[in-house]
Amino acid sequence: MHLKQIKMALESRPLYLQSSPLLFWTCSLLLVGCGCVPMQRDMAKEVASYTDVANQIIKLVLSGSAQKRSYQRLSNFTDAIGNRVSGSHNLELAIKYMYNAMSQDGLDVHLEPVKIPHWVRGEEGAEMILPRPKRLAMLGLGSSVGTPPEGIEAEVVVVSSFEDLKSRAGNVTGRIVVFNQPFVSYPETVAYRAFGASEAAKLGAVAALIRSITPFSINSPHTGWQDYQAGVRRIPAACITVEDAQLMSRMVGRGQRVVVRVTMGAKTLPDADSFNTVAEIKGWLHPEQVVMLSGHLDSWDVGQGAMDDGGGAIISWEALSIIKDLGLRPRRTMRAVLWTAEEQGGVGAQQYYERHKVNISNYDLVMESDLGTFAPVALQFTGSQAAQKVMQEVVQLLAPMNTTRLEPHGEGTDIEPWMQAGVPGASLHVQDSRYFWFHHSEGDTMSVQSPEDMDRCSALWAVVAYVVADLQDMLPR
Amino acid sequence: MHLKQIKMALESRPLYLQSSPLLFWTCSLLLVGCGCVPMQRDMAKEVASYTDVANQIIKLVLSGSAQKRSYQRLSNFTDAIGNRVSGSHNLELAIKYMYNAMSQDGLDVHLEPVKIPHWVRGEEGAEMILPRPKRLAMLGLGSSVGTPPEGIEAEVVVVSSFEDLKSRAGNVTGRIVVFNQPFVSYPETVAYRAFGASEAAKLGAVAALIRSITPFSINSPHTGWQDYQAGVRRIPAACITVEDAQLMSRMVGRGQRVVVRVTMGAKTLPDADSFNTVAEIKGWLHPEQVVMLSGHLDSWDVGQGAMDDGGGAIISWEALSIIKDLGLRPRRTMRAVLWTAEEQGGVGAQQYYERHKVNISNYDLVMESDLGTFAPVALQFTGSQAAQKVMQEVVQLLAPMNTTRLEPHGEGTDIEPWMQAGVPGASLHVQDSRYFWFHHSEGDTMSVQSPEDMDRCSALWAVVAYVVADLQDMLPR
Repeated sequence: MHLKQIKMALESRPLYLQSSPLLFWTCSLLLVGCGCVPMQRDMAKEVASYTDVANQIIKLVLSGSAQKRSYQRLSNFTDAIGNRVSGSHNLELAIKYMYNAMSQDGLDVHLEPVKIPHWVRGEEGAEMILPRPKRLAMLGLGSSVGTPPEGIEAEVVVVSSFEDLKSRAGNVTGRIVVFNQPFVSYPETVAYRAFGASEAAKLGAVAALIRSITPFSINSPHTGWQDYQAGVRRIPAACITVEDAQLMSRMVGRGQRVVVRVTMGAKTLPDADSFNTVAEIKGWLHPEQVVMLSGHLDSWDVGQGAMDDGGGAIISWEALSIIKDLGLRPRRTMRAVLWTAEEQGGVGAQQYYERHKVNISNYDLVMESDLGTFAPVALQFTGSQAAQKVMQEVVQLLAPMNTTRLEPHGEGTDIEPWMQAGVPGASLHVQDSRYFWFHHSEGDTMSVQSPEDMDRCSALWAVVAYVVADLQDMLPR
Repeated sequence: MHLKQIKMALESRPLYLQSSPLLFWTCSLLLVGCGCVPMQRDMAKEVASYTDVANQIIKLVLSGSAQKRSYQRLSNFTDAIGNRVSGSHNLELAIKYMYNAMSQDGLDVHLEPVKIPHWVRGEEGAEMILPRPKRLAMLGLGSSVGTPPEGIEAEVVVVSSFEDLKSRAGNVTGRIVVFNQPFVSYPETVAYRAFGASEAAKLGAVAALIRSITPFSINSPHTGWQDYQAGVRRIPAACITVEDAQLMSRMVGRGQRVVVRVTMGAKTLPDADSFNTVAEIKGWLHPEQVVMLSGHLDSWDVGQGAMDDGGGAIISWEALSIIKDLGLRPRRTMRAVLWTAEEQGGVGAQQYYERHKVNISNYDLVMESDLGTFAPVALQFTGSQAAQKVMQEVVQLLAPMNTTRLEPHGEGTDIEPWMQAGVPGASLHVQDSRYFWFHHSEGDTMSVQSPEDMDRCSALWAVVAYVVADLQDMLPR
């Protein structure tokens, strides 16, 4: 998950159902009572006619031959490849792997070339020199410049917020700024990772060390993208651990002089060639119309990228497999897109949008899973009121899984351009209380995934995508 | 906390109150009704007479001038020194620091020389070579031998238990054994860290990599002591992360050949000079009689050793400070002992026992805090039924803190020799659900400590020690 999602999450209202099924049925009955036959009742009836097929999908995944397959596919994939950052050889291997795996699965697969950023971490390290020597666990941030080979050694100034930084403006020149901001929420607190370096550089800092954006730590550094502001000097930026940020804060609070040396071999190479990986089940009636399911195939260069976002990519593939296994073929095309270079700002998805937006009227629904594939809680959806009414009916088909909640605000860096342009968008709300404990860290591995939870995500994903792709009409805009 | 505690914890019966206050009062009333004046009633009355002083202690710590002092002292100490493994320069610094700090606090301080093990980690690292290259986070285990400089490279055999290891006896020679045992409980599961290397070596293994003994991980390795069995070849032993043990288990399960290289510069140097650090408030009536409060000053060579066991050492000092601040002086001596080399098997404490056991009849109560200084839940106590009755009354004095529970089985590697010899022993039961998440890892830092919880531990520690030290009689054996 990239930091673009911050904005969307910040705009999210509290979770509640935007349309009440009770209200809807009351209105429908009143209309029927008047002798009117409302479109809504036909739609509800049409969606309800998918109850059997939804049950078949759920059964196949939760207790049939597809059981635990999502987990198996994800572990086969991430164990074989490992992490796969934008521009890396591993990402190339990952794309080839998924191209082959989905082709062998009998899907219609192709690759769409894109250019992506190629930032490399290089050798890096940080240590406290004064008041006592101590190695600092750290991870340089994506897009950061490196340091000279001998590193940058300077006294630190510790700040707890951007305001605190400004209040120390006279004391920042030539210093390393340590941001020790408290964790409030990811969308709010990630601003320090994203903008900390440029804000510090404006006041003359020589490097920025930012407390990792996490509510919990076992001395674990978390990486991620950061954005240099145009016209501001580019200084090296890295995340350190919560523990070390708090340690330095206590030391400076005691009046101690804290000196740190940071060394980073980070550099940005010319853009690399890459691909969005696309697999399809072509629609039998309207092959040009598309329900798109997606997740991103790239990850950070730590851990396995199992949670962010191997799981989202795999359930998007898996949803197609399930439909194929059941011998189904919807009216419209179901298209799984495995994005490249999401973590660098939805780069692959942006180029996909530019290429395909000419056909935007044929995009029925765009879906992305990029908040983990833990136990699903609800479907998040952005669309017109009329579209919400349809989706409200669709999620009732998930009653056997007890996940019939529709929530406002579909989200996902990669589907955002389509949603901004008015295409209905959906995403997966999962029980994710520990998501940010592992996010962008060495802890993002298969060990956080559960076969049962992944099955539930895949079943939900397949039911929603298939039914929307097979309804008589596209979702109303 | 060292692995000796395993045995004690395994022997622990479920937690319940060994003596029922209701039963006790019923018996007492019956005896009074018979015209007898039982000793118990006098004792209860005598303990109850300490209600005011207990309230003063609690008030001083929870809302008075000693508030947050335990946390301040612990953070001043561990921030300044860092971790302090047996034999290290840091441990020497730590002993000097505490000697000075407790002397400046007005206590009667002295050092008692002991010889301690001097194991050094050296440079170390592990990497998977096949089926794909991957760095493995690891920590060599205390007492382990090192590898040749070029490391040991071998195919791994992954086992899930000692039984599983034996069932693969024909397949272990020349291999690195990866123990991927599930975490059941620390006392049970730590057997793999303690004995894994020798068990593997018996079957011809060249090294042992043991899944860290923790219920939760963010790819965090945990170190600790391990025991070579006499007459068995000594092979290098290290802990790897839960995640990597599971990864290699999955790979081998797929029929893949997994090859790992481990390099360890570990070695054992000649025993080092060290000290147990002793601070006292001399008893005004029976200075030769002792209530001993303790924690260990040494730690592992990762993290800060704040939880294991800086906190236990600090509250033992703090309890004396509190009594001094209130101008109190008990009948018997209150002695805080900060042990050295606990993590190597209670080495400092064993030598203390050998030197002082001649005076065992003067040891009234031995106390140790080595399971964290989080929110206190109860006092754990080992002693005769008669002693339990006294302690049952003593903990009632903690009613203002709502910690009046007495539980069976005092524990602590360092007080064990005294308890074995019949001296009553007490320890602190704290809310420690996450203790083993941080234990012996880089995550054992000040960030896991809370000033409020430490205050509560110190207040409890001070009330119990002072009252027992001031009662007319020593605890009955």
